[in-house]
Amino acid sequence: MSELRYDPVKQIWSVIATDRSRKPDDFLVKRLEFRKDEISVCPFCRGNEEKAGNEIFSLKKDSEWLTRVVPNRYPAFRIEGDLKRTGHGIYDAVNAVGAHEVVIETPKHNINPGSYTEQILFNLFVTFKERMLDLKKDTRFRYIMPFKNYGLLAGAAIEHPHSQIIALPVTPNVVKTKLSAALKHFQTKERCLFCDILDQEKNENKRIIYENQDFVALCPYASALPFEINIFPKRHNHCFAETDEGEMSGLADITREVFSRLYNCLEDPPFNMVVHTSPPVVKRPSQPGYWASIKEDFHWHIEITPRLSGVAGFESGTGFYINPVAPESAAQYLRGTGK
Amino acid sequence: MSELRYDPVKQIWSVIATDRSRKPDDFLVKRLEFRKDEISVCPFCRGNEEKAGNEIFSLKKDSEWLTRVVPNRYPAFRIEGDLKRTGHGIYDAVNAVGAHEVVIETPKHNINPGSYTEQILFNLFVTFKERMLDLKKDTRFRYIMPFKNYGLLAGAAIEHPHSQIIALPVTPNVVKTKLSAALKHFQTKERCLFCDILDQEKNENKRIIYENQDFVALCPYASALPFEINIFPKRHNHCFAETDEGEMSGLADITREVFSRLYNCLEDPPFNMVVHTSPPVVKRPSQPGYWASIKEDFHWHIEITPRLSGVAGFESGTGFYINPVAPESAAQYLRGTGK
Repeated sequence: MSELRYDPVKQIWSVIATDRSRKPDDFLVKRLEFRKDEISVCPFCRGNEEKAGNEIFSLKKDSEWLTRVVPNRYPAFRIEGDLKRTGHGIYDAVNAVGAHEVVIETPKHNINPGSYTEQILFNLFVTFKERMLDLKKDTRFRYIMPFKNYGLLAGAAIEHPHSQIIALPVTPNVVKTKLSAALKHFQTKERCLFCDILDQEKNENKRIIYENQDFVALCPYASALPFEINIFPKRHNHCFAETDEGEMSGLADITREVFSRLYNCLEDPPFNMVVHTSPPVVKRPSQPGYWASIKEDFHWHIEITPRLSGVAGFESGTGFYINPVAPESAAQYLRGTGK
Repeated sequence: MSELRYDPVKQIWSVIATDRSRKPDDFLVKRLEFRKDEISVCPFCRGNEEKAGNEIFSLKKDSEWLTRVVPNRYPAFRIEGDLKRTGHGIYDAVNAVGAHEVVIETPKHNINPGSYTEQILFNLFVTFKERMLDLKKDTRFRYIMPFKNYGLLAGAAIEHPHSQIIALPVTPNVVKTKLSAALKHFQTKERCLFCDILDQEKNENKRIIYENQDFVALCPYASALPFEINIFPKRHNHCFAETDEGEMSGLADITREVFSRLYNCLEDPPFNMVVHTSPPVVKRPSQPGYWASIKEDFHWHIEITPRLSGVAGFESGTGFYINPVAPESAAQYLRGTGK
């Protein structure tokens, strides 16, 4: 019998509908194709650097770039100007001051995430960290988020391997909800919510896909979508940018494992990867008994979400998802497809 | 320059990124196709009634059915049993007691929403109302929601025109957020939030697509996705099931207009339609100065959302959407494609 499950972090209910459990084969939808003209002259390939816009950052070896960061050509946010909040009758608006950068992950045009090396991922995460440390200096930004869209159904518009980093002038609701769940847990128990989740997952050992010395990859208890994966650092740490070099290697290793398993299990599915970390500035009211620091109660993590079906009316109307694959089954499939 | 907009109902920010505004033509993605074996022996066609399961309800004329309601063959919720809430360590679960029904909208297998007659839509809405009145008697249900998925990318698994009705044992967060926004507005101003929105929209007259005596269709100010449409009754009314017969005709008329414009403007796009109405039971704390009734502060409405692109990492990570078409432009396109 299916059951509803409540995610203590996102504060959403999911229906784990095991009655209509499906095998990975059931999700092999016909892929949409990239427009050919977008591929022919790729601005992200070596030799076409000038087409990609002014370089913001690059990681180099022997004078050849390994990763490059450039402005998004169609930015949702602009770096120039002061933040301006205005009212229009009953409505509220803010101008879209922020940053919207593209990370070119590798010079290789034709490589899918299932074949990424540990080195490619190490370079990518180091690039995320460097950009976050720089963007954090800009006090207009309330949230900085690195993310990757892979495949047309997951929102990628171009083929060359790339991620994005966005810096926002407001804290998004999804983030606020997570922060407040973590704070509430800490205020009651003086423990980190995420550390508690990791403890329980380790004890139950039903939803863990892979772990190494520093990281754990698992399918979350109340997964809203099939084959959702979270990666957590084992060391309590609120901020992605405080990951040290040894941990970066562990992160590259576990992400390579996850990407390769997703590729094998679901035949190169479209997916999104999002890094969730603490905001640069956390405004908390000072009040009696109120003393938890974001360093104590938040715990950075990565969410990886394969996009295997469209969004239906039920989900969009309720924010409440029907997931036809129990995370325990998803974890079992993904464990079985490792090397 | 693009701007962020705050939706006072959903309490989410959207980026209205007019800099990368697109024409409807840009959204003509290649459609996925239904599996042939799903079409060959359609359980929703006349003559195959026994294949669709036990009839829950039907609307008839001269002993022929016009609409039929049957149980969902793969229900996410089951009607049998008592509600049971359980804890699993840090996690919480509820068994999935509820109702999950399918509304067969018409005996015609091959008709797309762009060609629906007013009569088909009148029958559909009357069917929704009848089922809601019946399901409201079951005190286990906290929320009842009729919705329609059209097209594979919008989550429809079968081709024959159909909608669904779901009754849930918990109030979904998206609904709670709307209810609390409406209550807060009423407590401050003693006016309905939605009535205030309608007043302003009428004055500005930039986002209205179509109106008749009883209803208004518009593109909401902070539309999260391109070509989002809301339909509101002009009369303040919290509950869809209290719509009278005259209004039902108006609703059928405006929905036919909206469906036909979507079809013409976006070439038969996949879309979701969701009816948002007040929950059957609203538990509100009794406290000093607390007196607003759901009848005063909530206002039922319909959300129609074309599914023109996949969900990307940014949206899923933040709950914060980047919409490349300003609702003013979307409304203009949709106004121009009427008969």
